[in-house]
Amino acid sequence: MYLLCLQRLLSVLYIMFPRHAAVVISGTELARQIHREIQRDVEELIAHGNMRPHLGVILVGDDPASHTYVKNKTRAATILGISSDTVVRPSSVSQEELLELIDKMNRDWKVSGLLVQLPLPDHINERAVCNAIAPEKDVDGFHIVNIGKLCLDQRSMVPATPAAVWEMIKRSGIQTVGKHVLVAGRSKNVGMPIAMLLHSDRNHERPGGDATVTIAHRCTPQYRLKELSLLADIIIAAAGVPSLITADMVKEGAAVIDVGINRIQDQKTGAVRLIGDVDFEGVKEKAGFLTPVPGGVGPMTVAMLMKNTVTAARNALMH
Amino acid sequence: MYLLCLQRLLSVLYIMFPRHAAVVISGTELARQIHREIQRDVEELIAHGNMRPHLGVILVGDDPASHTYVKNKTRAATILGISSDTVVRPSSVSQEELLELIDKMNRDWKVSGLLVQLPLPDHINERAVCNAIAPEKDVDGFHIVNIGKLCLDQRSMVPATPAAVWEMIKRSGIQTVGKHVLVAGRSKNVGMPIAMLLHSDRNHERPGGDATVTIAHRCTPQYRLKELSLLADIIIAAAGVPSLITADMVKEGAAVIDVGINRIQDQKTGAVRLIGDVDFEGVKEKAGFLTPVPGGVGPMTVAMLMKNTVTAARNALMH
Repeated sequence: MYLLCLQRLLSVLYIMFPRHAAVVISGTELARQIHREIQRDVEELIAHGNMRPHLGVILVGDDPASHTYVKNKTRAATILGISSDTVVRPSSVSQEELLELIDKMNRDWKVSGLLVQLPLPDHINERAVCNAIAPEKDVDGFHIVNIGKLCLDQRSMVPATPAAVWEMIKRSGIQTVGKHVLVAGRSKNVGMPIAMLLHSDRNHERPGGDATVTIAHRCTPQYRLKELSLLADIIIAAAGVPSLITADMVKEGAAVIDVGINRIQDQKTGAVRLIGDVDFEGVKEKAGFLTPVPGGVGPMTVAMLMKNTVTAARNALMH
Repeated sequence: MYLLCLQRLLSVLYIMFPRHAAVVISGTELARQIHREIQRDVEELIAHGNMRPHLGVILVGDDPASHTYVKNKTRAATILGISSDTVVRPSSVSQEELLELIDKMNRDWKVSGLLVQLPLPDHINERAVCNAIAPEKDVDGFHIVNIGKLCLDQRSMVPATPAAVWEMIKRSGIQTVGKHVLVAGRSKNVGMPIAMLLHSDRNHERPGGDATVTIAHRCTPQYRLKELSLLADIIIAAAGVPSLITADMVKEGAAVIDVGINRIQDQKTGAVRLIGDVDFEGVKEKAGFLTPVPGGVGPMTVAMLMKNTVTAARNALMH
């Protein structure tokens, strides 16, 4: 709340006085705001005699990154009063076994939300797995029916990263109606759903941003990307390309949301650090708003997954 | 085929010599090309001992426009060797009765493709009706699973109008990869799926156009629409606004596809005529390619619906 007021105040000040650098939107701070809302929602559910929301996670194989992601998710759940359990299967698990496990957890009323950590081993069809999860428990929002609903502006489980981008824009007071948004990246989990959320009608069942949206990607020539990004009021970088967006591509005062997570090894120390798709230092001098990496969209994504889990628990009350 | 060669030749000549007016893409001619392909496919199906493809149509109420649309569709079917039947129900029909009828036709193996003519009376939930049609018989492509598949670049029944626009572009030899497309209009049956087809990856299961795509709509300010349309190699006008696209908004040599169908009453004679969203006479002097209204996307849309019916008949062979 304080953060919200502060950011609004800063955006007013930005109009009144010349400024030197962008407002850096802290995903960590905004995530805390959402955490408080989730904790309140969980307490409310329990106070009304309902079960504590529970997140079921299926983890296949021993990829360290996947194990870290899952640990981050279940740890966040615990802190927020959401219970969870992780079912681990070896990478040799058959698709049939996996589908049976999902079916069992779909029918288990104690599981409010269910996710299968991706990627899966090559012998398993990820699409079949995503479509096997009951749509009302599908906290990742990857089920074909949830994708269809998202694209038709119906209420649905919105995938966590696009939902995070939406919340960061809205909670920072960045206007979208009639604005031009450039989305760089067209992945089905990030770029495409972000474009869907932002271009659609604010008066539909699931409100959209009413923005003019340009979707760019690896086939977009560099000169064209620059041409279009210079016309954008909001730039969403979700291509997985370090330094894709540089200061010369940003209109003075534009909002720049960096969804990229690229692992870069320091040539001297050998240490791995995370960088986004945006040249942060350069763009900071030009943009009106900017999200950092790390500490931007990342923590917000986990928060939105938890919000989806509470939504799933509420869905269960209606079934 | 001749038409295709002619159009390719014209596009080469256009590069070699200065020209005075756009190549007018005749939807009527291209539809004839597709008709021949469908007739060949139907004959082939029958020659292999399969049933003749059959289109089932459900028509509710007595709206004259709906009756005309249905008549055009079933007449086209007959000409192409596709059998059809139209089940008419009064506008007082209950949603339950309608869903029962759909269920019956879903289970009827003699029905290859099934469509319910829209719009439906207010007391009926159109979404529920679209979702009741078996996805593999859904020749309109409006089922939530077909929408989801379309947006994930999976093979699916593509709605006829977006499919028509795609074919007109491809069969006229207009390049899309790396080009900038402006789609004016974001309807769920036309603008949105066109944007999906054109921005997505040409190497995916259902190939996309690999174009950079901008989606504009009623919230796009006029100055911004012009700014973006002047950068577009392809403009798709699907807003339902007469004269939305004028010559001053078109880049020299751009392709302009007019999906608008607006009924205009002549103030003198009182006669009703159809016009598109594009100022045809003006834009003709500027564009490289242009589709007329009528005789453009309209006849191609009916052709693509028939193509979907043949696809549905093929789907049935695999079930």
